[in-house]
Parts: sequence; structure tokens; C-alpha cells
Amino acid sequence: MTYELPIRVYWEDTDAGGIVFYANYLKFFERARTEWLRSLGVGQQALREQTGGMFVVSETTIKYHRPARLDDELLVTARLQESGRASITIAQQAWRKTSGQPELLCEGSIRIGWVSAASMKPERIPSSILEALK
Amino acid sequence: MTYELPIRVYWEDTDAGGIVFYANYLKFFERARTEWLRSLGVGQQALREQTGGMFVVSETTIKYHRPARLDDELLVTARLQESGRASITIAQQAWRKTSGQPELLCEGSIRIGWVSAASMKPERIPSSILEALK
Amino acid sequence: MTYELPIRVYWEDTDAGGIVFYANYLKFFERARTEWLRSLGVGQQALREQTGGMFVVSETTIKYHRPARLDDELLVTARLQESGRASITIAQQAWRKTSGQPELLCEGSIRIGWVSAASMKPERIPSSILEALK
Amino acid sequence: MTYELPIRVYWEDTDAGGIVFYANYLKFFERARTEWLRSLGVGQQALREQTGGMFVVSETTIKYHRPARLDDELLVTARLQESGRASITIAQQAWRKTSGQPELLCEGSIRIGWVSAASMKPERIPSSILEALK
Repeated sequence: MTYELPIRVYWEDTDAGGIVFYANYLKFFERARTEWLRSLGVGQQALREQTGGMFVVSETTIKYHRPARLDDELLVTARLQESGRASITIAQQAWRKTSGQPELLCEGSIRIGWVSAASMKPERIPSSILEALK
Repeated sequence: MTYELPIRVYWEDTDAGGIVFYANYLKFFERARTEWLRSLGVGQQALREQTGGMFVVSETTIKYHRPARLDDELLVTARLQESGRASITIAQQAWRKTSGQPELLCEGSIRIGWVSAASMKPERIPSSILEALK
Repeated sequence: MTYELPIRVYWEDTDAGGIVFYANYLKFFERARTEWLRSLGVGQQALREQTGGMFVVSETTIKYHRPARLDDELLVTARLQESGRASITIAQQAWRKTSGQPELLCEGSIRIGWVSAASMKPERIPSSILEALK
Repeated sequence: MTYELPIRVYWEDTDAGGIVFYANYLKFFERARTEWLRSLGVGQQALREQTGGMFVVSETTIKYHRPARLDDELLVTARLQESGRASITIAQQAWRKTSGQPELLCEGSIRIGWVSAASMKPERIPSSILEALK
């Protein structure tokens, strides 16, 4: 029920604090959501060409517990938390792999709506996506 | 009481949806916090060299209302919402300048702690910063 | 003849080496080109809506001389180096402001073509742009 | 002799032109170099802790042939082009996987030096790295 994506920390992800720049966890979370959808048969570029619609993020709540560093190996998860007709909420976490127990680095929830790419107006999420997520 | 920083939207800020990538508002908010601190006489690089400490973000809550596009002119604000010994919370907004009323694009709060850069352990925020913020 | 844009270094620009991540100078250069065009009356978003075309970068050559750090104040320049019907080449530099002479951090040239946004096929650069650049 | 890393294009990589932002190929190239070194037993974070040194990029030359789009699957390569005591040059390419022949999107060479992380002064590349690369 929970999708997991391994992600490696590269130079581009870090900042002068020597750790992963906090905004970049949103990128990691987005990669995990995208791969999760892909694993369910949902390709966002293809869907946009077919339906003219796309996902947009409407709300994020993130807690940062521990920093990640260059070369760290993360495991980023995605799980459906709530699902409506026009928006879904995904619970996500970033863990660091260690020789022992993984360590929770960061967690949060991302609320996502579906819009017309042309007008940016909210629309119903295509049923193919909602069914794939169930 | 509220600091305002004008920020222009460049190609680097946008994504294939034709709008500003949502994670990038965290960058805009960080720029506004940094300039706000600088306007109060607080330089983060200098402080780190003097104290060995730095800010880290511990929590973010963001709501996205309207998208921004290439070439848009934003006004990004920062205001002290809450202040403790080890962390402060900053309320931030991103507005789009228009010929009429500015439009609220995105808003949220960012909780920030102070840590030793070497150990990443929490420490008290330097009193010079807390006083500058009051 | 040479356009200059002041740019401040923020956390987002740095990496765990404690310096500006080298790819980010391409962002700085792009901001300077965009503001230079804007100062000449050329808005890229507006042009795209009118002509359906946009700039794409076709070649970059960059030399990195000295690193920039958090809070550094840069001066980023843009100057027309070569101009043809389908592409132009811009010479760009990034300098650090100091109390004395500015220091050259990075320099290079960026070759840019004009394409149809729909087909990505090369097209002639709109004459309004070429005239503005002269 | 040529290292290959598969890289997927995500939202974060694209811009409002609907294609991968050209600066981001430098990130893709850096990921491939890092994984190549890792596959040869060289970990950059570990090396920095042991030697106090790190790589910095001193020169890049990139040609962009075709754009990549959201969801594209790339193959990014790295190959030693030239090797000296204080710097090495890596030839890199980004290809798009297709149902037929892969398409060359972007190629270039990246010159990299070794510096003391504390002083940013050039130093000899650790012999363990040079030997691993041969």
C-alpha cells in the first residue's frame, strides 16, 4: 500500500550547511509520487496530451527531523491518505538507509488537485487515476 | 513590521506546467527571510563564522492559491509570527503585482531552529538575532 | 553596451562544498540576459504569446575561476558577442563585489536560437529582438 | 570504458518551455560522474572526510541538440577524456531512450580539479582516484 523509491543525495541537492536543502525534499516527494503513479500505469505527460489536464499541488505540510548529507541513500515513500473528486492527499516520508534501522528524516502530506493546463481551473481528477490509486 | 522583497520569475523557476514549480516558493520565502535579516543587520555567513551556528528549517506549512508565470513580478513578505529561545516561526506570503490589486499566490509559515553547524544539535538562537527581530 | 545585473547569493545557490553550485551560474546568466532584454523592451512571455516562439540555448562554454559563497554580492554581465538570423551569442561574466576591485568568478558564452514553442523547430529570431539588441 | 546512468525526467527538471531546463543537464552529468566514481569505489563524502579535499568544476562546454520532456527516460554517460595530476576532463552525453535508436540530446566535456575544501586551493588529485579511473 506504500510505494517506496530509493533516491541518492547528489551535490545538487545539498547547500552550504552541508546538508540537503529543505526545499529539495519536495522534489524527492514529487519523484516518488510520479514513480508511484507510473507503477500504477499512470503517465503524467501522456495523460496531459490525452486530457489536457495536470496535477497541481495545493497544500504541503512538512516536518524536518534529521538532515541528509551528500552520498546518503534515501528511501522515499508515498501513500494515499485521502481521496476526493477534485483533490487527493498523499502522505510521504523520507528515510535514510543505514547499516541498521532506517532513520526518518522528513515527513509530510501533499494535497494535489487536478486542473485544466490551459485555464488552470480545477477539474475532476480523471477516474482512471482514482481507480489506479485504490 | 512586515518585510517585503520584490522577486521576478525567471525560466529557472518555472516547470512544464507553464507555472512556477511549487517547491520554488520555498526558495522565494528563504530569500525574503535572508534579506529581512540582512536589513536588521544580521548576516548569516558572518554569524556562522562568529558563532559556528546556523538556521535550519524544522517545519513548513504552505497553501498554494494561484500560479505565477514567467516574467511575473512578485512581492514576497516575511513577518515574525512566534518567537522562542530555540526556534522562531515566520509567516510568509507571495503576491503578484498587477496593474490593480496585488493577488495572493501562496502563503505559509516556516518554523526555524538554530543549530551548531558542526554537530547539527539544537542551540539557543543568538540573542543578537532575537533582539533584531523584535 | 554591457548590461549589468546585481545578484545576491542565497542558500538555494550553494552546495555542500560551501560554494555556489557551478550549474547555478547558468541561472544567474539567464537572469541577466532576461533583464537585459526586458531593459530593451523585450518580454519573453509576451513575445511567446504573440509569436509562438521562444529562445532555446544551443551551446554554452563556461570557465570557473573563483568560487562564490553565501551572502556574496555578484555583478552579472551580458554583452552581444555575435548575431545571426537564427541564433545569437552572448558573452557573460559573474563578478564578486568587494570593498576594492571586483573579482571575476566565472565567464563564458551562451549561444541561443529561436524556435517555435510548439514544434521546437528553429525559426528566424523576431526582427524586433535583433533590432533591440543592436 | 563508458559509464551509463539511467535518469528519468521529473517536473523539477522542466521549465515553461515544456522541456528540460538546459542548466539541469549539468546536474544529470554530475549524477553520472558521481555514480561512475562510486562504481569504482570512490565515495566523495568519505574522501572529503579522509583527505579534506573535493572536486570542483573548472570548465564546461556543452552542446544541446534536442530537448527532453517530462517522463522521458535518459541515458547519461561519462568517459575519461583526459587526465592530469591536478585536473581531469570527462566527456559526457545525454541520450533519450526510444523504442528504436536512442537520440543524442546533449553532449559536452567537464573539466574538474581537486581543491582543499578549507582553502579552495588546487591540490593533486588523490592517487586512489586516478588509479580507479584508469
